Amino acid sequence: MRKIYLPILGMVLGFGAVFPVQAQKKSKPDPLKEEVQASVDKRFAELTNLSDQIWSFEEIAFQETQSAAALSDYAESLGFKVTRGVGEIPTAFVAEYGSGKPVIGILGEFDALPGLSQNKVPFKSPLHEGSPGHGCGHNLFGVASLGAAASIKDLIDEGKIQGTVRFYGTPAEEKFFGKLWMIRAGLFDDVDVVMDWHPAAETKAAVQKGLALVDFQVEFFGQAAHAAADPWNGRSASDALELYSNGINYYREHIKPTVRIHYHIQDAGQVVNVVPDYSRIWVRVRDSSREGLMPVYERVKAMAEGAAILANVDYKVSLISGIHEVLVNRTGSAALQKNLETLGAISYTEEEQDFAKKIQEATGKPQIGLVSVIEPMEETAEHSMGGSTDVGDVSYVVPTIRLSATTAPNGTPWHSWAVVAAGGMSIGHKGMAYAAKALSMTMVDLFKNPELVEAVKADFKEHLGDYVYEGMVPDGPPPLKSNLQ
Amino acid sequence: MRKIYLPILGMVLGFGAVFPVQAQKKSKPDPLKEEVQASVDKRFAELTNLSDQIWSFEEIAFQETQSAAALSDYAESLGFKVTRGVGEIPTAFVAEYGSGKPVIGILGEFDALPGLSQNKVPFKSPLHEGSPGHGCGHNLFGVASLGAAASIKDLIDEGKIQGTVRFYGTPAEEKFFGKLWMIRAGLFDDVDVVMDWHPAAETKAAVQKGLALVDFQVEFFGQAAHAAADPWNGRSASDALELYSNGINYYREHIKPTVRIHYHIQDAGQVVNVVPDYSRIWVRVRDSSREGLMPVYERVKAMAEGAAILANVDYKVSLISGIHEVLVNRTGSAALQKNLETLGAISYTEEEQDFAKKIQEATGKPQIGLVSVIEPMEETAEHSMGGSTDVGDVSYVVPTIRLSATTAPNGTPWHSWAVVAAGGMSIGHKGMAYAAKALSMTMVDLFKNPELVEAVKADFKEHLGDYVYEGMVPDGPPPLKSNLQ
Amino acid sequence: MRKIYLPILGMVLGFGAVFPVQAQKKSKPDPLKEEVQASVDKRFAELTNLSDQIWSFEEIAFQETQSAAALSDYAESLGFKVTRGVGEIPTAFVAEYGSGKPVIGILGEFDALPGLSQNKVPFKSPLHEGSPGHGCGHNLFGVASLGAAASIKDLIDEGKIQGTVRFYGTPAEEKFFGKLWMIRAGLFDDVDVVMDWHPAAETKAAVQKGLALVDFQVEFFGQAAHAAADPWNGRSASDALELYSNGINYYREHIKPTVRIHYHIQDAGQVVNVVPDYSRIWVRVRDSSREGLMPVYERVKAMAEGAAILANVDYKVSLISGIHEVLVNRTGSAALQKNLETLGAISYTEEEQDFAKKIQEATGKPQIGLVSVIEPMEETAEHSMGGSTDVGDVSYVVPTIRLSATTAPNGTPWHSWAVVAAGGMSIGHKGMAYAAKALSMTMVDLFKNPELVEAVKADFKEHLGDYVYEGMVPDGPPPLKSNLQ
Amino acid sequence: MRKIYLPILGMVLGFGAVFPVQAQKKSKPDPLKEEVQASVDKRFAELTNLSDQIWSFEEIAFQETQSAAALSDYAESLGFKVTRGVGEIPTAFVAEYGSGKPVIGILGEFDALPGLSQNKVPFKSPLHEGSPGHGCGHNLFGVASLGAAASIKDLIDEGKIQGTVRFYGTPAEEKFFGKLWMIRAGLFDDVDVVMDWHPAAETKAAVQKGLALVDFQVEFFGQAAHAAADPWNGRSASDALELYSNGINYYREHIKPTVRIHYHIQDAGQVVNVVPDYSRIWVRVRDSSREGLMPVYERVKAMAEGAAILANVDYKVSLISGIHEVLVNRTGSAALQKNLETLGAISYTEEEQDFAKKIQEATGKPQIGLVSVIEPMEETAEHSMGGSTDVGDVSYVVPTIRLSATTAPNGTPWHSWAVVAAGGMSIGHKGMAYAAKALSMTMVDLFKNPELVEAVKADFKEHLGDYVYEGMVPDGPPPLKSNLQ
Repeated sequence: MRKIYLPILGMVLGFGAVFPVQAQKKSKPDPLKEEVQASVDKRFAELTNLSDQIWSFEEIAFQETQSAAALSDYAESLGFKVTRGVGEIPTAFVAEYGSGKPVIGILGEFDALPGLSQNKVPFKSPLHEGSPGHGCGHNLFGVASLGAAASIKDLIDEGKIQGTVRFYGTPAEEKFFGKLWMIRAGLFDDVDVVMDWHPAAETKAAVQKGLALVDFQVEFFGQAAHAAADPWNGRSASDALELYSNGINYYREHIKPTVRIHYHIQDAGQVVNVVPDYSRIWVRVRDSSREGLMPVYERVKAMAEGAAILANVDYKVSLISGIHEVLVNRTGSAALQKNLETLGAISYTEEEQDFAKKIQEATGKPQIGLVSVIEPMEETAEHSMGGSTDVGDVSYVVPTIRLSATTAPNGTPWHSWAVVAAGGMSIGHKGMAYAAKALSMTMVDLFKNPELVEAVKADFKEHLGDYVYEGMVPDGPPPLKSNLQ
Repeated sequence: MRKIYLPILGMVLGFGAVFPVQAQKKSKPDPLKEEVQASVDKRFAELTNLSDQIWSFEEIAFQETQSAAALSDYAESLGFKVTRGVGEIPTAFVAEYGSGKPVIGILGEFDALPGLSQNKVPFKSPLHEGSPGHGCGHNLFGVASLGAAASIKDLIDEGKIQGTVRFYGTPAEEKFFGKLWMIRAGLFDDVDVVMDWHPAAETKAAVQKGLALVDFQVEFFGQAAHAAADPWNGRSASDALELYSNGINYYREHIKPTVRIHYHIQDAGQVVNVVPDYSRIWVRVRDSSREGLMPVYERVKAMAEGAAILANVDYKVSLISGIHEVLVNRTGSAALQKNLETLGAISYTEEEQDFAKKIQEATGKPQIGLVSVIEPMEETAEHSMGGSTDVGDVSYVVPTIRLSATTAPNGTPWHSWAVVAAGGMSIGHKGMAYAAKALSMTMVDLFKNPELVEAVKADFKEHLGDYVYEGMVPDGPPPLKSNLQ
Repeated sequence: MRKIYLPILGMVLGFGAVFPVQAQKKSKPDPLKEEVQASVDKRFAELTNLSDQIWSFEEIAFQETQSAAALSDYAESLGFKVTRGVGEIPTAFVAEYGSGKPVIGILGEFDALPGLSQNKVPFKSPLHEGSPGHGCGHNLFGVASLGAAASIKDLIDEGKIQGTVRFYGTPAEEKFFGKLWMIRAGLFDDVDVVMDWHPAAETKAAVQKGLALVDFQVEFFGQAAHAAADPWNGRSASDALELYSNGINYYREHIKPTVRIHYHIQDAGQVVNVVPDYSRIWVRVRDSSREGLMPVYERVKAMAEGAAILANVDYKVSLISGIHEVLVNRTGSAALQKNLETLGAISYTEEEQDFAKKIQEATGKPQIGLVSVIEPMEETAEHSMGGSTDVGDVSYVVPTIRLSATTAPNGTPWHSWAVVAAGGMSIGHKGMAYAAKALSMTMVDLFKNPELVEAVKADFKEHLGDYVYEGMVPDGPPPLKSNLQ
Repeated sequence: MRKIYLPILGMVLGFGAVFPVQAQKKSKPDPLKEEVQASVDKRFAELTNLSDQIWSFEEIAFQETQSAAALSDYAESLGFKVTRGVGEIPTAFVAEYGSGKPVIGILGEFDALPGLSQNKVPFKSPLHEGSPGHGCGHNLFGVASLGAAASIKDLIDEGKIQGTVRFYGTPAEEKFFGKLWMIRAGLFDDVDVVMDWHPAAETKAAVQKGLALVDFQVEFFGQAAHAAADPWNGRSASDALELYSNGINYYREHIKPTVRIHYHIQDAGQVVNVVPDYSRIWVRVRDSSREGLMPVYERVKAMAEGAAILANVDYKVSLISGIHEVLVNRTGSAALQKNLETLGAISYTEEEQDFAKKIQEATGKPQIGLVSVIEPMEETAEHSMGGSTDVGDVSYVVPTIRLSATTAPNGTPWHSWAVVAAGGMSIGHKGMAYAAKALSMTMVDLFKNPELVEAVKADFKEHLGDYVYEGMVPDGPPPLKSNLQ
């Protein structure tokens, strides 16, 4: 098995080094990889049950008490050493097995999204009206990652691999970005490579950077007055907020096409007949890189003073948190890609395809069902669009290999009831198991091939350059009980 | 007692007819008026207890279940015939005693205000953090009016007066304006004269019109989209709302000085990373008369379409409710004024004055304590400023005589913790008893002097002219469980 | 003639002292007053010709070269000592006759308004398309005042009165307010009483204060960029201006009903495809008094910084000029009123009434013709609405008596073509002659009755109190060649 | 010379067909191409003189009377048949020579830009303060194209080529886009291929599409009122305009990254003390294609109604004109590229390089002088950024081959004084002569190789597809005397 990986050959679009995969298409099966797949199959009922529990808990950012406990308890029951409440976050934990080098980490998220509660049916039907739901598939996310770690544990138990596997229970990915405080606490300092995955509508190595972002809130403090009797004695915090958002919208002409600014007016007064003395807006700035982001962030922050002067009120700008785009590791991704090709695509029953088509019908998408082919690894765009993840920050601290696995039909609008529905039934369960397999197979590569770990690290160092990572969080504890909820 | 009242003499500032008071300053005491005062004193402990209960219930508009029950039960215990749940409002009721003409009504409010819970101490100190409080003194309002009705009942029992006294338990004065539905239900159709009072920082006949107003909500319906991935597929309901409020603010240049427009942004999206598909704003327009109000209301409603077009969204404008300014009855007010002069001002203990001064200190007002003198009756301004009341609508249906009685120190900011504090202790209790006496004395005048009732009615008719009252409420039931709460 | 004037009797509406007029309604004719009337009649053709010339010159603020020369030359031809170019303004001048005390001043304006050129016909018909026109009747204003001064000169020549009459040729009343620089130059320091008048649609002593105002401009300085190729390199001065005006419109909720803010966007960029690096807005703030004005002025100035911060540009705020409301002198006005009553109203021919009615028809007003009755002197309102005049500043430096005389039909929209038309034909000429008579008659009072002068001064001092006049102009010369033109 | 052109080989980035150039790098000189170069050299003094004249005329869009006459006269003097005043535009003309097929057109622009008058010195120094200047190098543009046509004429005269050469004198490229009306008049209906060039800071075949755009104006019509006395009787056209631009700025969040919207506030009122009854804004929408442009255009037009409703005014939207992005013809461009490689880059004297460096210094650019290398032909980006040209519309009607030739130093900000300066001296003259040579050499190819013409036409047809060209101009004559000037 020498020389599986050739030296780095070149650059793709000025960005990523392509780590070549094995030359032969149909290699003979790797027994360790066969074994981790079997481990996942063995625990499938347990994992499914755990996922369905978390699906039912419907717990949002920093409130994932039952979900974190369920995962922690399961890890403990498997023999993992679990440390709960890490990073000053009650629902963050680390579950470790084995010892010594390499230390391979794997990330697991488990928070839900507000307002998306849904039954396991292919049309919009809230389970608990107004409650949260797993519209991002995180009920599957944490479980699959832990399942992958468990498969590695089995090999360690059998003495077939050496080292440490560490599962990170990472809360609050949808809001606040819990990993930032886990990084700040040094929890990633001794890890060699980290893996993660994400539920998706397709299966592939995830090699796009996504967007860096920063969240901050602006508060305005005016003077209340009776809106009819003496509005001239009032200084309106709502006026300031509206003029601030107005300023932001004028500023849109002067931002680059890759930048996004969005905001959420959270409080612009409480009653109709009083000039409001308080208002609050949550602002998010994104760009395809933190480097592009920062000057825009500084501008939008500075504008708060302008709005405050216009409305003659006081103001306060508070950083909530900010995350990096992903530092894509194409070397690691290439290893993952190979395993995807080995595994092949997920196959579905007719019932699952019907369910998928009904979802597609209900959301106005082409009714093509579930399409889970393994395409060649994508190029990494210089400016990718789309979402953001706090895995970005992990990727700037440790080399990170990322997977997307299908848990919902093609075209499904993400963060919607449809993701909740599919993630609560067999389509989601299959994706979860697939992810656990692909992740553990790639971890086998990492444990067994020190050259791969070195190459992944070299790729990381090359693209990091002399950039010095700094987490963008305010001093003090994480915003566990924030008015921002 | 013939000829106590002279014919209407003239106009004051083109508005109100002055009904002359008795010529002699010190007339000999009227035994019936002495008796109603004694009745109030007799029931003082009961009334105070009832007021303190309602103070503790802290129930806001349309949710005054316990408060309405307490008042209804007390009225029933006194022998009144009580009809509960009138006007399609569970907490509205009528308590009647006696029979035949005249029918003299008296209004009692009892709803609290959100967020004003406060202990009975002269500094800000919430009793139940975030809970409502009686910042408008309505715990005293309903009780004093019922106490006045009870005093009249005593005279009816004794055969000293003839006719019907009717107490109206009128909920939701602070929001939604419950009296509108009670009027719509015909509950005021057979009344001759109505009296009411309001807790205040001074004692006087209330002869200002206040402001007419209308409340309506505008909703915008857009298209959600991921704010970073494809904002061009979104049509923002928040944009529409912001452009709407922007339009309102530009319109301010073009409204008359008596007009007020205020709004409350209630919902402009729920999360930061989605183009919001829904927004809602509560708008209130006021003017010194409904006549002035209507064209402004029409304009501000019409602007919703403009904002919707600008943001390419749909919209819906819904009337909440609207009330008239008060049709002041100076003839009736003059009769009330006479009784105030007979009663004289409330006297306070040193402790009460200390309490008052501490409140004045805490609210940055001159520490002059409680000043409760009886000044000559004010002129009625053509354009009065200040607040609004749904008594305005009653005053357009029945001649209405209104009292202000001191229940809080001079200068107290209304709708504040300070009103709650003073209204929960002896300062409030004294004002309540004073109001009960002044109201029942004036009802004695009305029951005993048919000429006064006729003069009050003539004044009403003269100022009403050919105006045809129409209540401004949407069809259907009152908004008992509205999202507007 | 003893005791013509009684002591000051009282206050009217808390403001002005009423100086009582002669008790008897029909006093015997005053020969000096008869004589000044005759003098005006004697010069009627000359004055009319002079007025028509100025009407034809159509010269706007600070550009009244021919108009000032015509008036100066005429004064010189009458023997007045003329000083031209006073107050650093080429078109300002002083024409003086006589010597010693008292010094009675009389003001004459002569500037036109842009865009109002009109033929002498009762329907809109521009004489020179796009040219200025005398839409405020100032062609009559300067001439009548000079005619009045000439009548006084005749009496001085004859030795019938003693003292000095001084005509002030005051340019730029419509814009920039030329009198401010004439006051700054000390030209009013030695005057006892000043008179002026204004063309109007009615005849009366002018006893309303009008509005104080301040004019200033705000300039924003950004960074130009190609609006399509790299708008992100631009910082838009137009954005700043728009956000500034937006801020002003939000601020409207928080100004008192007497305050007015208006603005004129003068420059918001020059071409469509460039992010503008320069913008300019002219802002005017008014209130019923300078005292009320100043805090609003400070706020609106301060807002410029806020807008500049929002748009990330530089800014500059420059005072243009500001004027006081009028310090009404009711004592002097009462003397004037007496003379109006003596003179009686102007009478008109059928042709003039037809002309007036056609104007009223063309401007949508009731066709009641010219109504020139002499009503009793008005009360002085605490907050008057309407326009502003730089006579306000003169009135804060010298006691000032003001007349309105009819030169246009009732209801005529001021600053319109209709005023130009009427002011160029016999309706205007009659008003001019009437004003010259009423002014010179009142000047006779002032020259002959030192007690009246003292009473007028006492009234002035009483209402001025300890207010220290300060003219609101920037340092340096007046804005003769401003970009503000 | 058989087989010079190989068959079309493939697609570049999904867009253009590459027409291969001659295989051998150093071919033997083509005598006809040598001759056209000599023709340009022969007329260099005349052409330079003509260019300098047009430079001095400084005539802007639709006012290029002298410039058009100078070019027309020169063409006539050479024997061209000139038709003046074509397309309903007095300054548009066609100059034709020869007869029969093929008909090869060549475009010449000659309008200047407002406010850019400049001396021929390397620092900002206006020749006529406030006057226009040739900041886009069009003084060179028309002359070089006519020079190229003249060289072809010489060959026709000598019988060395057959067919028709036609010079189009195309005014108003900077504003209004004169070619639109020339196309509408059918002037391009019988042409086979069109060539044009543009002054630039580099020399290359121009193969980017630029941006499609549309210009329109929105007018608002309100009701004037005195801004202090009765603003409530006014309906402000300026309010509408401001709310409209506000709406546009909110809309920016919802446009694709390739879209640009810019506007120029042209009139928002004329005086400070009147509620404005008229306002006007010029709006430009651009996108990388007309297809992308149209829905945005429709939206921004529709928004005018929204703003009008918000401000309660009337409105009118008027199309000014709109142009297509360029339909790039890579087949023709490849032929041009070959000639550029044959010609080589322009060489400059030390004085010219010094001049260039001083310009670079004055405009804050790297002082690298003039860099005129011939790079390989660029790929055609799917979405190009930058400017727009009405050649776009010609390119949708006739196959069009475009050249950029150096007439200003690298990095020069376009539409600036620096372009005027360089275009008026030898740097510009050299670029002009170079362009004339490259264009006439390529025309030689077109006249002599029917296969090339066919290939160019095939490329055109392939990329046009079934798109039916429609010029975006309002009915009626071009806006020769528009208030838009």
